Amino acid sequence: MESTGDGSAKILREEIKALASEIQALKDLKSNEDMIEGNIVGMIEKKPFASRESQKKFEIRCPRGTRDYGPQDMALRKHVLDIITKCFKRHGAVTIDTPVFELRDILLGKYGEEGGKLIYDLSDQGGELLSLRYDLTVPFARYLAMNKTVVYLKRYHIGKVYRRDNPSRGRFREFYQCDFDIAGSYDLMIPEAELLRIVNEILNALDIGRFEIKVNHKLLLDGMFSVSGVPEKHFKAVCSSIDKLDKLPWENIKNELCNEKHIHNDVVSKLETFLRLREHNSSLTNLDLLNWFEKDEVTSKNSNIQEAVSEMKQLLEYCELFGILPTITIEPSLARGLDYYTGAIFEVILKDSSEKTLMENNSAEEETRSTNIGSVAGGGRYDNLVSMFLPKHKVPCVGISIGIERLFTIMKEKSKMEHMRSKDTHVLVVSAQKKLVKERMKICRFLWDNDIKAEMALKANPKMLDQMQYCEEHKIPLAIIVGERELEEGILKLRDVPSRTEQDIPRDNLIEELNRRLEHLQ
Amino acid sequence: MESTGDGSAKILREEIKALASEIQALKDLKSNEDMIEGNIVGMIEKKPFASRESQKKFEIRCPRGTRDYGPQDMALRKHVLDIITKCFKRHGAVTIDTPVFELRDILLGKYGEEGGKLIYDLSDQGGELLSLRYDLTVPFARYLAMNKTVVYLKRYHIGKVYRRDNPSRGRFREFYQCDFDIAGSYDLMIPEAELLRIVNEILNALDIGRFEIKVNHKLLLDGMFSVSGVPEKHFKAVCSSIDKLDKLPWENIKNELCNEKHIHNDVVSKLETFLRLREHNSSLTNLDLLNWFEKDEVTSKNSNIQEAVSEMKQLLEYCELFGILPTITIEPSLARGLDYYTGAIFEVILKDSSEKTLMENNSAEEETRSTNIGSVAGGGRYDNLVSMFLPKHKVPCVGISIGIERLFTIMKEKSKMEHMRSKDTHVLVVSAQKKLVKERMKICRFLWDNDIKAEMALKANPKMLDQMQYCEEHKIPLAIIVGERELEEGILKLRDVPSRTEQDIPRDNLIEELNRRLEHLQ
Repeated sequence: MESTGDGSAKILREEIKALASEIQALKDLKSNEDMIEGNIVGMIEKKPFASRESQKKFEIRCPRGTRDYGPQDMALRKHVLDIITKCFKRHGAVTIDTPVFELRDILLGKYGEEGGKLIYDLSDQGGELLSLRYDLTVPFARYLAMNKTVVYLKRYHIGKVYRRDNPSRGRFREFYQCDFDIAGSYDLMIPEAELLRIVNEILNALDIGRFEIKVNHKLLLDGMFSVSGVPEKHFKAVCSSIDKLDKLPWENIKNELCNEKHIHNDVVSKLETFLRLREHNSSLTNLDLLNWFEKDEVTSKNSNIQEAVSEMKQLLEYCELFGILPTITIEPSLARGLDYYTGAIFEVILKDSSEKTLMENNSAEEETRSTNIGSVAGGGRYDNLVSMFLPKHKVPCVGISIGIERLFTIMKEKSKMEHMRSKDTHVLVVSAQKKLVKERMKICRFLWDNDIKAEMALKANPKMLDQMQYCEEHKIPLAIIVGERELEEGILKLRDVPSRTEQDIPRDNLIEELNRRLEHLQ
Repeated sequence: MESTGDGSAKILREEIKALASEIQALKDLKSNEDMIEGNIVGMIEKKPFASRESQKKFEIRCPRGTRDYGPQDMALRKHVLDIITKCFKRHGAVTIDTPVFELRDILLGKYGEEGGKLIYDLSDQGGELLSLRYDLTVPFARYLAMNKTVVYLKRYHIGKVYRRDNPSRGRFREFYQCDFDIAGSYDLMIPEAELLRIVNEILNALDIGRFEIKVNHKLLLDGMFSVSGVPEKHFKAVCSSIDKLDKLPWENIKNELCNEKHIHNDVVSKLETFLRLREHNSSLTNLDLLNWFEKDEVTSKNSNIQEAVSEMKQLLEYCELFGILPTITIEPSLARGLDYYTGAIFEVILKDSSEKTLMENNSAEEETRSTNIGSVAGGGRYDNLVSMFLPKHKVPCVGISIGIERLFTIMKEKSKMEHMRSKDTHVLVVSAQKKLVKERMKICRFLWDNDIKAEMALKANPKMLDQMQYCEEHKIPLAIIVGERELEEGILKLRDVPSRTEQDIPRDNLIEELNRRLEHLQ
């Protein structure tokens, strides 16, 4: 198209406008705003994309919010996970595993507004849109939807989950969850009681001090909102504010409800009566509290509240039979942010842990959160999650998720006193002179053939002192010392490392003697 | 800027041209071409980005190339991993863990041209550029570079790695690797020999038939290229072609070298002599082969070849001492595609596994690959990887990586005969009549308190038949039957499930009697 004068200038300006709006549209893509900001705006600012990162100094470190586990950490982690696994198996659970990422659609709309923002997406490299798992519950529900014949399942799953949380608040972005869930149509509160029993067994076995299991019920929350006059469309928003009550004082929550979420002052005041019942009546027992809801003029007329009260009374009865009643606190203000809960909900708080131990950063901003820092587990009933994937396929579920990072921190403090062995070696095969590498190899082979945990220095002519230091450093209890004299006489010198006593052993008796000495070491 | 006439039109056209080239540049971003194609081109074609996926039907499945492990699979997986871990510990290894993703820069340039294309990137959601780990070796080297005081380490690491490989070829995109690496300045071939011994112990313990460990040396490869006349700048390209020799016939490799990589015909012919030495002289022993390289007029003059030959002779001697010589084959044509190897390299092949067992898809395209389908482990020496991260910090390393997916497949075939228990429950607490849920709960509590693996039906009034079927189905060996008569008499009925014999036990003797009966069950 040839053009001259103002007319053509106008056309061209419109073309520019169209192109500019195309670029603007690229910038505006809300659904992946960070990618756009990072890459495309970078491009428009004339920086070549590929060099954006390389301009920074090349750094050798873990990604923010993640960390390596060294040998000592791993020994402790194994100790904690063994205790947890042992308990899960004692209760008859099987285990499953799922991929670390899921189709993005599977995770969408499950974690509330706050949680959804923290999901890690994978790049679209062609093919599917994927995200890293945010918890182990949604993958479990997806598994149940895919395996329709599985309508009863007690399963545990120990694995890492991923959240783009703020590491400066001491939150990890990669962390372990240990989940125990019971799927299936069972009778009221029997599975819930077993879950709370499991938490008790684990925390007692870990021996990390007193703890409290806060229990509430989704229907009690809904009922309290309803009788206070919260419009139903605002239930989720109010719930998400109340969820912060363990971290912020009531005044802040009230302020958020009235001024940010525009809930009427009278409504908030009514709600306050219920939510702060415990706070204002510290002598209330669990039963007193439930009786109060049962008899109060307003709440006694709400069927949701009455259902919740009756279920929680049943739960208390079972908890008594399981010997765990003293650890249970019914707490009407407990709200959990996830969208999928439908019945009882739980949260487990450590009571003896000092804030200092648990906090990675003691920033001023963080101090307000410190009352919640002891939360180590949470869970609840989610009867509709499976049918979110597969309508008409109803598999009621209830589960608890134990977050072990805080347990590690506490156990680590504790174990600083006692050195944890990170390697299991029982015997070091030592050279007393040079040129004995082949003899040491033969003995190692003999030991390995007999399933004895043995090592040798990997140098041809190691120094005696270095070898003995290696034993001391790694707490290896026994050393077999090979020398020319011993070879000639067909014997081996066996040294007890802690006591430094030595004994000559005929080669033929070696395994028997080692097994005898190692018997008490498992 | 106001403008009229042709002059301004020209300016505007240039503006258009600039904007258009900006859009073109967006399309051209080679470094993330898929993202551009998927999202931005989609945008330019006026499709709203967010709805691109939602137009498809919502699918409930695992991402391509990944899968869930159900309870049976997990029982088998634990069995295999326990054997492997036990062996690693027998050799004195500690274990470490690293995050599932790394800073993208850490992984760049480590996996050859082919491998690099398979790395999973995370979306840039603001902050760091991250990728999922492709193996456990590079994270280990990064760990060593970050922990400078660790200059000696025998460590194992069992974890999942991620590769965007082609699932239609039976390749998984998420799979386990079991790595054992030895870092430190040790004497020649002693660590290598221990690694090969470990592979022997593991494959023997798994009892999956005969296997062969192919061994070659990076310096032998370099030397053969050099004396054949391959220009040094083409070493990597030639190596990457030769890497395919176990999957494709020589003619294809020759064709690729001559026609695609433009290596001179004479050069390729010389190379062929070396690479097909074994093929053309099937009676050659390992030592014959090494002696041939030692004495041949051409190769005897190349110092790289002579160094490789001398090292491999040393390795053979140590392998004999470790009792594993019959599993070793020196194979001059073994090439491994990774960039970081510097010395001995290994690959482990199963010899008895039928192709059918190992192949997920028997497509025609796949058949050419079938000779290599038995590869279950690989590794080698990589002395310079740590200093790629931290120049001047030299930590020599050698390692082996066992890929257990194929082992699972074989073990799974084998175990179809014998049912593997996926839950460990020893006792089911059974109701003989209705209304005994609380009695069952009390007994369960008593059993759990005494560390006995026990379950009860989670219904208030389960049917006797259903409860006994549950025992049979899950191979639970014992049932405690609670009835009104038993409660009155202070006894419990203990039923041996397989034999269906029953015995009345006084309540006070219950734990003792259970432990006696369970003793032989671990």
